[in-house]
Amino acid sequence: MSFCVQDIAYELGEIKISTKDLIAKMVIPESKKIELAERVGTEYIYETVAESDFFSLSTKCINSLLLANPINTENLGIIFVSQSNSQIIPAEGQRIRHACNLPSSVFVLDLNIGCSGFVYALFLADSLLKTSQLKNIIIVAGDTYRRSLNKDDRSTKLLFSDAVSAVLITSGGTTEILQVDFGGDGLNYKDISLPVIQDYSEKTFFRMEGAKVFSFTNSVIPTSINNVLLTSSTKISEVSLVFFHQASGIVLQTLQSKLGLSETQIPKTINTFGNTGSASIPITISSYLTRKEINTGDTIILSGFGVGLSYGTILLKW
Amino acid sequence: MSFCVQDIAYELGEIKISTKDLIAKMVIPESKKIELAERVGTEYIYETVAESDFFSLSTKCINSLLLANPINTENLGIIFVSQSNSQIIPAEGQRIRHACNLPSSVFVLDLNIGCSGFVYALFLADSLLKTSQLKNIIIVAGDTYRRSLNKDDRSTKLLFSDAVSAVLITSGGTTEILQVDFGGDGLNYKDISLPVIQDYSEKTFFRMEGAKVFSFTNSVIPTSINNVLLTSSTKISEVSLVFFHQASGIVLQTLQSKLGLSETQIPKTINTFGNTGSASIPITISSYLTRKEINTGDTIILSGFGVGLSYGTILLKW
Repeated sequence: MSFCVQDIAYELGEIKISTKDLIAKMVIPESKKIELAERVGTEYIYETVAESDFFSLSTKCINSLLLANPINTENLGIIFVSQSNSQIIPAEGQRIRHACNLPSSVFVLDLNIGCSGFVYALFLADSLLKTSQLKNIIIVAGDTYRRSLNKDDRSTKLLFSDAVSAVLITSGGTTEILQVDFGGDGLNYKDISLPVIQDYSEKTFFRMEGAKVFSFTNSVIPTSINNVLLTSSTKISEVSLVFFHQASGIVLQTLQSKLGLSETQIPKTINTFGNTGSASIPITISSYLTRKEINTGDTIILSGFGVGLSYGTILLKW
Repeated sequence: MSFCVQDIAYELGEIKISTKDLIAKMVIPESKKIELAERVGTEYIYETVAESDFFSLSTKCINSLLLANPINTENLGIIFVSQSNSQIIPAEGQRIRHACNLPSSVFVLDLNIGCSGFVYALFLADSLLKTSQLKNIIIVAGDTYRRSLNKDDRSTKLLFSDAVSAVLITSGGTTEILQVDFGGDGLNYKDISLPVIQDYSEKTFFRMEGAKVFSFTNSVIPTSINNVLLTSSTKISEVSLVFFHQASGIVLQTLQSKLGLSETQIPKTINTFGNTGSASIPITISSYLTRKEINTGDTIILSGFGVGLSYGTILLKW
């Protein structure tokens, strides 16, 4: 039994910021500015206004998804993937479900994961559609990291966009997961972190050790991709598209070259939307679906990585 | 295909506190003291020392579980259920997995749920064992709420114990989930809550609207139990044991009387351990497994409720 990615909705932060303008204001040599722009690889980033947050963006996404796709909500599940809850307790799932006027019988799950999260959620959704009474699952993935950033921290403020995506997955369809590969590096869990108490002193901002995370990604992701290829007896040339988490321009370039992928095999939305966290894979798939550039039977890889540190790779037949 | 609850380990906070002593010190009429002791229904509560937390208790639980049950860790998954992470980002899963010297290929999932969480995790574990390559799943569930309590708040400080449980579930066995029922009340999500910024002023403590949560439980849980009985054509008299979340003495008494259950049908550990959060169902099952009071083929109900607000009920054949 297989599934179908029926539709994808997403919302970006309301404020559009030009990274070029941000870089121009920096007091660094001109050559550094060019290098920085290339590493980041995005023209614009999106930030939520003060009244907007994961809760409001999610509610919008779910409402527009359900408006465009009227479904029976009796056997509906929603898997939330976020680390941008308005409070430590509770997570936002039930609150968002209620705000969307969805029945209390909807199965609601809150996963505490970042950029790798969509891949984890899709793995769970596929499993639940196969074994439970659920017929439709919406994966809501995203974060609003920008409000926790240190505005002086170049490694994050030029990169992250606030964004939330909602993906409607229905049972019965042609899309099938053929192989998965999950893993992580718990020793270096602090390489992407945000402490509980945020007094907004330097130590309590969202913090990313860019160079270390870059080296983690370059070490585990090529191996993870090769694992799913090997175990499914698939050649890299047979893969139509590899949807990577849109971490940064330099990360995508490096992965492409390490894996010997062609330009057309790696869809990119980093250049227009920035690093949209766990929403980045759904947002990128969405642009391909809209242009009808994914066909039934295509071999597709999804690979997410980040907070945890953790990663997940799925090879599927669309 | 079914599963087997192979073993359960748990850890309580290191400091044992007598609720009788705590109540004795309160400046309230004697009659109120007796009433309070009965409502709470526990003799002792357990609190972690400063150096101890969800991370350390989980690590201990997993290590002792794996020492007693040497398993192949190649196809192992660990589902963490907690809202007591040391930081907002990341969740503790990968860090704990690494601290237990488990391979990076272990599938690690972090659920952001409270007292209802074990039931959600068991539902996922069963699904994953049926559809994926995972052969063993450890559900680690628990919280260390006490450090976030207002010490003047009677409704919480007499009730909650810090505790973590680890349940080893293996594929192949006789235990089978026959029916499930999940739901929640997102309108009243703040009835059990903890804000992000904890400056330990009155407004930022862990807060529970006891009366409202009591009324939520009494309204949804009997209906939820009846739902799984009805859809599985089971009479309440055919159910050997109903493992409720050990919320409080008064909650368990009320549910028992509302559902017409006998004393022997409702296992209790609230009286000795207090409200151990999402660890309460595993800890209670553990005491019955140790005394061999659960038999193959027994019809068992598990029902968790709390933070979200959310609930989950599972009817299974052991």
